[in-house]
Parts: sequence; structure tokens; C-alpha cells
Amino acid sequence: MQNKRKICVVVTARPSYSRIKSALQAIKGHPDLELQLVIAGSALLDRYGNAADFIQKDGFEASAKVYMVLEGENPTTMAKTTGIGLMELTNVFYNLKPDAVITIADRFETIATSIAAAYQNIPLIHIQGGEVTGNIDEKVRHANTKLADLHFVSSEDARDRVIKLGEEPAKVINTGCPSIDLVKQIESEIELNFDPLQKYGGVGKNIDWKKGYLVVMQHPVTTEYESSRAHIEETLKAVHKSGLPTFWFWPNVDAGSDGTSNGIRTYREQNDPENIHFFKNMEPLDFLRLLKFSKLLIGNSSVGIRESSYLGLPVINIGNRQNRRLRANNVTDLDYDRMKILAAIEEISKIDHFEISSIYGNGESGKKIANILASVDLCSSKTITY
Amino acid sequence: MQNKRKICVVVTARPSYSRIKSALQAIKGHPDLELQLVIAGSALLDRYGNAADFIQKDGFEASAKVYMVLEGENPTTMAKTTGIGLMELTNVFYNLKPDAVITIADRFETIATSIAAAYQNIPLIHIQGGEVTGNIDEKVRHANTKLADLHFVSSEDARDRVIKLGEEPAKVINTGCPSIDLVKQIESEIELNFDPLQKYGGVGKNIDWKKGYLVVMQHPVTTEYESSRAHIEETLKAVHKSGLPTFWFWPNVDAGSDGTSNGIRTYREQNDPENIHFFKNMEPLDFLRLLKFSKLLIGNSSVGIRESSYLGLPVINIGNRQNRRLRANNVTDLDYDRMKILAAIEEISKIDHFEISSIYGNGESGKKIANILASVDLCSSKTITY
Amino acid sequence: MQNKRKICVVVTARPSYSRIKSALQAIKGHPDLELQLVIAGSALLDRYGNAADFIQKDGFEASAKVYMVLEGENPTTMAKTTGIGLMELTNVFYNLKPDAVITIADRFETIATSIAAAYQNIPLIHIQGGEVTGNIDEKVRHANTKLADLHFVSSEDARDRVIKLGEEPAKVINTGCPSIDLVKQIESEIELNFDPLQKYGGVGKNIDWKKGYLVVMQHPVTTEYESSRAHIEETLKAVHKSGLPTFWFWPNVDAGSDGTSNGIRTYREQNDPENIHFFKNMEPLDFLRLLKFSKLLIGNSSVGIRESSYLGLPVINIGNRQNRRLRANNVTDLDYDRMKILAAIEEISKIDHFEISSIYGNGESGKKIANILASVDLCSSKTITY
Amino acid sequence: MQNKRKICVVVTARPSYSRIKSALQAIKGHPDLELQLVIAGSALLDRYGNAADFIQKDGFEASAKVYMVLEGENPTTMAKTTGIGLMELTNVFYNLKPDAVITIADRFETIATSIAAAYQNIPLIHIQGGEVTGNIDEKVRHANTKLADLHFVSSEDARDRVIKLGEEPAKVINTGCPSIDLVKQIESEIELNFDPLQKYGGVGKNIDWKKGYLVVMQHPVTTEYESSRAHIEETLKAVHKSGLPTFWFWPNVDAGSDGTSNGIRTYREQNDPENIHFFKNMEPLDFLRLLKFSKLLIGNSSVGIRESSYLGLPVINIGNRQNRRLRANNVTDLDYDRMKILAAIEEISKIDHFEISSIYGNGESGKKIANILASVDLCSSKTITY
Repeated sequence: MQNKRKICVVVTARPSYSRIKSALQAIKGHPDLELQLVIAGSALLDRYGNAADFIQKDGFEASAKVYMVLEGENPTTMAKTTGIGLMELTNVFYNLKPDAVITIADRFETIATSIAAAYQNIPLIHIQGGEVTGNIDEKVRHANTKLADLHFVSSEDARDRVIKLGEEPAKVINTGCPSIDLVKQIESEIELNFDPLQKYGGVGKNIDWKKGYLVVMQHPVTTEYESSRAHIEETLKAVHKSGLPTFWFWPNVDAGSDGTSNGIRTYREQNDPENIHFFKNMEPLDFLRLLKFSKLLIGNSSVGIRESSYLGLPVINIGNRQNRRLRANNVTDLDYDRMKILAAIEEISKIDHFEISSIYGNGESGKKIANILASVDLCSSKTITY
Repeated sequence: MQNKRKICVVVTARPSYSRIKSALQAIKGHPDLELQLVIAGSALLDRYGNAADFIQKDGFEASAKVYMVLEGENPTTMAKTTGIGLMELTNVFYNLKPDAVITIADRFETIATSIAAAYQNIPLIHIQGGEVTGNIDEKVRHANTKLADLHFVSSEDARDRVIKLGEEPAKVINTGCPSIDLVKQIESEIELNFDPLQKYGGVGKNIDWKKGYLVVMQHPVTTEYESSRAHIEETLKAVHKSGLPTFWFWPNVDAGSDGTSNGIRTYREQNDPENIHFFKNMEPLDFLRLLKFSKLLIGNSSVGIRESSYLGLPVINIGNRQNRRLRANNVTDLDYDRMKILAAIEEISKIDHFEISSIYGNGESGKKIANILASVDLCSSKTITY
Repeated sequence: MQNKRKICVVVTARPSYSRIKSALQAIKGHPDLELQLVIAGSALLDRYGNAADFIQKDGFEASAKVYMVLEGENPTTMAKTTGIGLMELTNVFYNLKPDAVITIADRFETIATSIAAAYQNIPLIHIQGGEVTGNIDEKVRHANTKLADLHFVSSEDARDRVIKLGEEPAKVINTGCPSIDLVKQIESEIELNFDPLQKYGGVGKNIDWKKGYLVVMQHPVTTEYESSRAHIEETLKAVHKSGLPTFWFWPNVDAGSDGTSNGIRTYREQNDPENIHFFKNMEPLDFLRLLKFSKLLIGNSSVGIRESSYLGLPVINIGNRQNRRLRANNVTDLDYDRMKILAAIEEISKIDHFEISSIYGNGESGKKIANILASVDLCSSKTITY
Repeated sequence: MQNKRKICVVVTARPSYSRIKSALQAIKGHPDLELQLVIAGSALLDRYGNAADFIQKDGFEASAKVYMVLEGENPTTMAKTTGIGLMELTNVFYNLKPDAVITIADRFETIATSIAAAYQNIPLIHIQGGEVTGNIDEKVRHANTKLADLHFVSSEDARDRVIKLGEEPAKVINTGCPSIDLVKQIESEIELNFDPLQKYGGVGKNIDWKKGYLVVMQHPVTTEYESSRAHIEETLKAVHKSGLPTFWFWPNVDAGSDGTSNGIRTYREQNDPENIHFFKNMEPLDFLRLLKFSKLLIGNSSVGIRESSYLGLPVINIGNRQNRRLRANNVTDLDYDRMKILAAIEEISKIDHFEISSIYGNGESGKKIANILASVDLCSSKTITY
């Protein structure tokens, strides 16, 4: 019992949870591992879909909760939130004394996890390094890589990149992405087994989704803070004009979310689009089900790149948020342009789904991660390979 | 006037100041640039040699001062200090609205500067990236590189490494190290033009240094926190035994400094070594003069690698703190071993100085940096090159 | 010019601004004073009515802005918000070097202002001390009094209490409440000079307010965090049942505001009350106009006690939030009980307004405050009088 | 077991520990209470005598440790330290979920404990309220009183004052001061049972203390920051001139301690006083023994007022730090004046000890406190009594 490795995972947002859930389950279930789950940041907040609730329902218990989000939703509060998080997470690790800390992907506050672990000489594992995008996430992700001692990447492409960044090849392991494990879980389902309107309420028109529907999820892009409102309007107008039944998800927290959120709110109040229903949040598996049986996903969520590859779901990816992230052939990239978006919606909503792609893993990542964690040599110092 | 570029430089420690001073002068004197100098961290504290005093004497004015060092001097307070610094520096940049921020080298708290700038979309310039060492600095330095938009490196070797890290070659400029500019400034001096004992007081015996002396400067190594006391004793015993007149400098702040400082303090009280005089601090130029006319530098300071290369000064470099940093042929590397250190002292103190090496620049870095800052294209987003 | 006294006022919330506005104008206009206005906390946030906008429209410029509200809206984030505010405001005062700092009333975060000033030996002036209420505000207010060097109170009753608290009588000055100055400004108006629906939008039914209307403003009560939702429902049901046209204002930030806000939101969605229109915010003067021409104010806002006394406006004050605060005869106190509230609405909405009461001042407080600030002896130490 | 009341005590400094130790023992030993001990601030730091070591030796275990002291030792870092402490202690209480929190006396950082508890609706008990002094402590102490729900005071005089401050008499209990319990513990000893020089080392001359000695302990006074160096020199010169064997204790942390510490350090280096031996720290009981068998205590420590009353020890109290604190007839008050201090030393060192005074309790405070804690009604809200 006392020899169990304590693995501390810090979840700071709803999407990060979906992306790590199967690994959390595998760690919790592994005889040689003890899970220390820290729920922090927007994962604790109602406004951002309170992931803590889902996490609890899924049977996990938090070892610590960290309130750290400073209100304001601008670049300045984003930086200060990270500073607060760093102070707090340092305390948390100091008290939990984990054998390793896992930091997830590239959200701005994940660097607080990385520094709090690295500076206290706790072996740091970075999940989903080595990918490429086009804004502040890009800087955060690679900085996390340089702070981490071990890397669980999601694709061969990402593995190559982390090695090029000067990490030892033996420390860079392609585990696939745990988010694909969830997709695999619903692989055999053949139709949507719940009514989204009944189960999740939401606001807007009661659309008739049974004959096919679109899903939209578009987040603000940090470095284009002020234009996020203009961007979202292009998508709103195209989707509205298409007349196709649509489930639209509010964006998660980020500098600029007000621009996007306000753009949606205003458009809804002024135009009351008859074909769009809005949701704040959905249980991760239900969300995947909704995608699986949709015609098309629109927006700039990484779900379009990652989970959708294994679903074979057609995706219209807008703007540069997912720039250069490895993608299968299900993705069509477009600029913020209502005419082009509308044209693409009309065309793509008619085509069939694509072949399943395993570029982001084959649905066994969680177990693979837990097994490695139980046996791998953990250490907290390294030197660049060149 | 209103078109001057505002360049904000954050100095967080005494050694960082020496390393950037000539660039600060060049920026201050450049017609198209405005210097915003932020003095922070241990640079404000008497216990660590109050660099703020030297800075003021040199004619610079602080745009802001940031108290951020949490007492404790352990890995936990180091991480929390960085969090506090991040909160504070975010405010400072928010108010100063610089056109670019410069972060220096690889001390643990420099990542606070980097994040505060990067997250607020302020172009970030990293100085002295691309080098290689062997502890937490290694992680910090490369993470700074991945957060920065522009890189002023000190050697061709470093430039190659930053480019390998995925930075655009055009954004990686070998300016040489500004610290060499100071060395060049005293190039023509032919003997020590001050009496160290009279000018700086210090404690310990009044040694007879005029016929030749050693200099020692050995810092704790973060990841070997508990053994720092044992390490310093090896050097103390070797230097004491050598009987050669020696000027010894107290270490600067770092986790573990108490181990080192206490080791020195105890040894001094118990043995009262007749050949060693201790200093807390010295004006940067005087320190270089002291080195220039010494027989040998002992310890693990980067001064032994960098400034000493241009001085041709023989150096005994102890332990792995400067591991793999590019060095000229003046450096002899040794482990923490009193017998080997003593043997090396006896041998090397008899040899002549080496040829001057320009691997870290030719003494014109400050001007070069200022000129680039005045004309370079500044931007705050980037994507990895591969 | 250089002899002007620098008076730093920290405004942390929308209602605090209304309460100090006339003093800010008088300070700004006084030849011997310089106003340093710090906008902080929820005053910067859209969610809480962004007072910063009104402040700017009124011609004030911020000397500093301080983001400090940690998301979560519970007692824990309330305490941490105060800690963040204390760190930040300390910096702000350190840089602005005011001759005196003014802290307003008793919101939880005002103690951050008080400590930041007191610990830096800056004379601290507390406005609106000496009153009595029934929750955490009660503790904060009297702690502010004990940290402050000078007291500008709003009533003779309050003055007596501050003196009893051990403050020197000469340092406790009844200036009246600056909020009454605003009421006086609209004293001569004889009908509502704007259409609330047109000017402020809001949500809910387009009620016919021209023949008389109610106003509701009910905040959560901190120490009864979990029952705030139950409390608000009592008021909602009573007001809905009354059928009288009603303007309802969302609560401001406080632990528990979610209980209250969610209660309102849910009730609105489920019942769509035909007689209620909801506002988030209103310019302070317009809000006073709305009150002046209303039949009745319902809720627990201090506006009901204070400004309404000078308006002679009938008020139904619910619960213990304003407990024991000095009141004129316009106030009827009730418990959270829909039947009693409904009965009171029906009765009181038929009666005339009351005589004007000057218990909270005669409308000249702002000028009085500025004049005292220009001449009073400022000092930052004191000893209890007994 | 599960019905034990959890009592959380926050110790932030060496002197606070001595003052609460017997209560900690009684709480720990009480069948109905569970002690949650938080060690914070300078109590964790070597520079300030690392009280954590003594605490551990005494058999207590820390439930949490909080690093919070920001380096700089000036009014600005004092305020920011309090902000950091507030953030951290909020977390600590949130996790420990105590039934009551105890805050001790009036050091600047104790208000962080008070706010963290009060804002989270945890019943707050203040120990040693109601006394009177002459600097920032005065403000902190009374603010703590106004934030606290229950008061354990040390004298009848203090009890009267807390009641005058508007607290309910039933909530203000004169328990006496736990520090007197320690004095009582050594009541029967008839000579010093250890050799201070051998047991504690220290620096300075090996004085011959066996025929009688003085003890000096003089702290900086916050609001007189810059003159602390001048003040300490008056005492140094008088004590040196007296020629009497003297044990001198370094001051504890406070803004200005550098002025005092540097004054002592410089004087020692320049004058090497043959009659003075310097200590950094001593175990609390040994310190009391040292006092008990000394001729005279000099300085401004509250030990001179409090513990010394029960020892009957003659005390020369210098300056206004203990201004107006209740004192027995053993105290002689003097200004910072070397001539007067010297004259008083010469006169008073010849007189006998005074009668024991019980104004600060009879040595049973710890037990009394624990018994009350086990049975008292705990609640976290209150209203002023007038």
C-alpha cells in the first residue's frame, strides 16, 4: 500500500477533463498507483460549466480544489490568474507530496502547474505536447515541454516534434490521446440515445434535430482579443442563413470570451434565429454522442481536429486557432467569412462521414498511460539533447 | 519624442545587472529608444548585495520596484516567489505599456517576466538563451526561449541551439554577451587600481594580496539542496590548505543558499582561515578588475565561463552548475573533491593567463542590442518552425 | 501646485461610487486637493454593472485600476479576493504616495484598502463608519474604524458610536452622507424625465409603469449563504402576486449572489412574471429619479435606509441586512415571508410619500468633506481614548 | 471522537508561541478538543529564531505551514506579507474546517488570520485584546477585536476596554495570560540551572554572569522606522558604559529591524563591548529562567510588562512601544536617552526584586482557556452592543 506511486493530476477546465478522463480512471484503478486529483480554475466555476460536478458524478474525489480565476477575462487577468495559480498549486503539491505531477496540454494556466512542480523538483509529465497551433497556446505548450521531464504525446507527428525540441527520445512516448478512449466507448452506438432538448434544456428555439443537425463550438482567439465579436458574427450569420437545425455551445473561459459570448447573446436577442438552440454544457459522453450523430461540426474547437478524426465527422474549422495541428482528411479549413462558411455548410452537410482515423490513438490511451506511470523511471532533472 | 520605442528591462538580481548593464546604457542613450527599468526580486535586498544601489549610482532610474522574494530559501518559496512576481510584473507591464520586454537569462524568477509579457501580448525578448547547464536553470532558460519572440544570444553555439528549438533563424541574433562589454572597458588597465580591503571592508583576515591572490565564488546548486553544505566545505578546505591569499565572495540568493552560507560561516568561525578574506559584494567593474589581476578563479559562477573567457583567466570550475555551457580553454572542470581542488590550485596558480577568447562576444554587445531594438520588427506571436 | 494634498479614494463597487461621487467631484474641484482615484474590484467588471464606465462618463480618470475579484462568489473567494486586493493596493499606494487614503463604508474588500494604507503609515480616512447592521459588514465596518485615523460619518448616531469605539471626538466628523447630495440634485424634478425601458433595455415584460410602479433591489446576505435562494423567492412571489408594475434590479457581487441571481433567473424563466421588468444597472442619478417617482422600494439595499430617507420614499426592508441601521419613519421592516410582504405592498403602495428627513445629511456632504480634507491635520497614528 | 471540537491556532512568530504555549498544551490534552496548529510567518524562518523547531521539540505537530514573509522588512512588504498570508490562511482554514480559529495578540500579520476566519464564517477567538500600546500594533489589536466573536483577555483592565469597544460582556473572558503559566512553572527554581554561554553559544565576549547580569531586548518601533538605529545606540552606549555583564537578544522581525539589527552589529564590530554577550534566541523556559535570575531587564519587549510582573523583575522600559499597557510597579519608563538609561541601570541594578503581581493572571490560563473552548457557545456573527 505504502509503495503506491502518488500521481497528481491538475484539471483546470472542462475540456481538459474530457481529454484526461480515461487516464484518470485507469490511474485510479491501477493497483500500483494512487490518484491525487486537483480541480482548479474554471473547472470549479458554474459560468464555465462546472466540470467539478461531472468529475464527482464520475466517481472521482478531489484531493484539493483551487480557486484561482481572477475576473476580468482579459490578457492582464489571464496572466495574474496564472500567478495566483502558481502560488496556490505550489502549496498543494507541497502538502500532497506527489511522486509525479501531470499537466495537461496548453491552456494558459497549465504553466502554473508546470512551474509549481518543476521548481519543487517533482517529476513533471506533460500530456499532449508537440502539437502546433497559432496563438498563446503555442507558447504555453512548448514551454510546458521544456519544463517537463516526461512526455505523453498523442501522435507520431507530435512525438517527432518533442524530440526535435531536445527531449530524450526515451522520455517521449506516444500514448495516443485519452480523449479518443471516450469516442471508442460509444463506437457501437447507432443512434442518439437521449433527447438533447429534454436532457439539457438550454435556450433558444426547440429545433427539429431528428433529421440531421449541425453542431457549433467556436472559442475566442486570445491574440485577436478585440475582433472576437466580429469573428463570431460571421459564423452566426452563416449558420443562421443555412436554416439547418443547429446545436450551438457557448465558449469556455479565455481572454476575449466576452467578445464572443456577447456577440452570441446580442445576435440571439436581436435575431432570435429559428434554427439554433444554445447549450452551455453537456456531459462529455453525451457531447460525443451528439457529435457522432451530427452532420457537421463548425467552429475552432480542438474537438474538431482530435475526437472528430476518430469519429470520421466532417468539420469546418474556422480561423487559425488550430493552425497546423495534425489533422485527418475530415477537416476543411476556412477563414472568418460568412459566405465561404455558408457555402461549405451547404456542401459538406450533404456528404457522408469519413473513414475512422487513428492519428490520435486507438482508444487505449488511458490504460497505456497508467501502465507506464506505474513502471517508468521518474526523475526531475534533464539536459537538452543537443 | 512620442515615437520612441519603450523597452522594459526587468533586473531581478545582482549578477543579472552586470550581465545587462552595457545594454541598459546603450538603450538609455539611443535616440529612438526609451528605457523602462524594473528592479525586482533580490536586486532590491540588502542581504543579496542590493543591486539597486549600484544601479542608481550608475545613473539609472527605476520605473518600478517589485518586492517579490518570499523568505524561506527553499524550493517551495522559490516557486511561490515566482507566482508573486508574476502577479506583480503583470501589473507593472499593464501600467508601463512597453513596446517590448526583455527577460534575462535563466534565474528561476525570470519566467515570471516572460509569462507576464507573453500573456499580455507584449513582444518578449530573451537574452542569453540557447546555453546549456545542469539544473533548474536549464528548464527555465529553454522555457523562456519558447515564450520569447526574439532572441539575443551570446554565442554561435547558443544561436544554433535556439534555432534547433524551433525558433526562426531571423529572430535569433548573436549579439555576444553584454557582460563582455564591461571586460573590454578595463582592457587597458595594467594593475589593480584600488585596495579591495580598504574599499570594500568585508570580514576575515587582512591578507597580503599584492603578490598574487585567488578569487572564489561558489553558489549552491538547486537540485542538490541538502548537500550544498558538504560541497562548499570541500572548496573551503582546499583553499585554506593552499595557503594562498584569497578573496571569497558570499553566494547570491537561491534555494540552498543557507547550506552554502552557513557552511562558510561555520568554517570561518571554527577555523579562522588566515589566508581568506570574505566579501559580500563589489561594484561590477571592480569585481572584474579583481578577477583580471588574480591568478585563478575557483567556484561555479558563470563568470568563470563567460567573462573569464575574454580575460583569459584560469578557472577551476567545480561541480555541474555550468555543465555543458560553452567554454574556452581557460576552464578546468572538477568534482567536489578537496584533494583534486587543492592539486589543481597548486598547479594552475602558477601558470600564465590564456589568450583572450571571443566566444562570448567582442565587447560591443550593448550597442548592437540597442541598434537592433530600434529597428527590428516587433511582434508577439510565433509558431514553431517544424 | 506641488502643495496640493493628494487624496486617494478607492472605489470597489457600483454602490460605493454613488455613495462617494459628490465628494469625488468636490475633491477634484478643490484648489488645494488632488484626486487620485483607484477603481478596483467589481467596479471594473461588466457582470456587476461596470461602474468604471459611469465613472469615466462623469469625467473622472483612474490613477490605477486593480483587478482583484477571484471568481467563485463564496466565502472562501471573498477572503482570498481581499488578500489579492491587499497585495495590489499596497503597490498602488506605494507608487501614488498619497497624503491620505479614503476607504468607503463596509464592503468586505474595503479592509484591504484600510490595511494597505495603515501599514504603510498613510493617514486613513473612513467614510460611513459608526453604523450598525447584521452580518459580516458589521465586523468589517468597525474594524475599518479601528484602522482609520479620521472618520467622516453620516449621522449623529454614527458619530456617537465611533466615539464610543474609542476614537477622539475631534477626529470624528459628521459630514452627512454624500449620497444625499445626489438626491438633493434632483430635488426639484417633478416627473421621471426618461423612459426606463427605452433607455436601459433590460429583460422581461414591457410593463406599463406610467401610473405607478414598485422598485425591488434585494442582495444576498453573506452569513446566510445557502438560504439566499429561498429568501429571494419569497419576495419574487409577493411582488408577482401583487400584480403591480415593477422594476427589479439584479444584486451586486457578494458571496451567495449566485443563490439570489439564480433564484431570480429561474423564477423568470419558469413564471415569466407579466408585471416585472429586470435591470442590471442604471446611472446613479437615473436610479434615484426612478426611486423618487416610485410608489415603494422593496428589498434590503441600504438605499432604502439612506437615500430614501431624504426622498421620503416608503420602503419595505426585508430581513436583517440593514438591522439596526439608523432609519427615518419611511421604513417598514419585514421578515422573509411572502404573505407579509404581499400585505405590506398592498397597503404601503397606496400611501403618500413621507416628509423629507435629514438624518443622513442635508445634501452638502461632498463639499464639506473636501473642505475638511484641505485643512485638517493628517496623521497616521493614534491611541484608544480609554 | 468525531465530536471533538477542532481548535485551529495560528502561530506567526517566536514571541507569540511563548505566549500561547500553555494553552496549546491544554487544548492538546483536553478530551473534547482537537488542536490544529498552523505555523506561519517568521515562526518558520531561521533568521527569526525558527520557533518551529521549539514547537516540534515541545511535542506539537503542525497541521499546516505557511510561508508568507516577503523580504524587505519595510512597511510595504509588511502590508504585502499580510495579503499573502490572507490568501494562504484562507486556504488552510478551508481545508482544515476548524470549529474555531484563535488569533494571538497584535502583530501585523495576525489580522490575516482574523479576516480569513471571519470572512469564512468560522468563529474567531482573539487572545490578548483590550490592551493599549503606541504604534501599528494598537490599530491591529483593536481591529482584531472587532473581527472576533470571543475574547480571552489577560487582565481586568483589558476586559473593561474590550467591553467598552462594544463587545458583549459574556463574550469577554479574563483568562489571564498563558505566558504567566510558564513563569509559574519555574516558580520554585532557586538558581539558573544551565550555563547560557555553553548552551546557546551566541557571539561576543564570554562574560562573567554568575555574580549578576542584565538582560536587554529592544525591538524597532514600526512608525519610527528611520530612527530605530539612533534609538538602539542610546541603549547600547548606556549598557556598555555600565560595565555590568549583559545578555543581549537580537530583535525579531518587523519593519525597521534592519535599523536596529544593523545598529547592534555595527556597534559590536566597532566597539567590541567587553561586558555584552549576544544571543539570537533561547528556548522559552530558559529565557524566563535567565530573566528570573537577572538583576534587571532593559528594552521595550512586552515581556518586561507581562511575564516580568509575575517575576517581580525590575524593568527599564524604553520608548513608547509599550505605552499605556497595564503595568505593575516593577516597571520604570524612560525615553531614548543614554544618560537617563545609564543612571537608571546603576540605581535599579542594586535593588531587590519586587513582590509578585497577578495583574496578568495566576498561572492557570492555559487550562482555563481549554475548558472554556470545550464548553462555550461558538458563533460567527455579532452586533455591536450600543
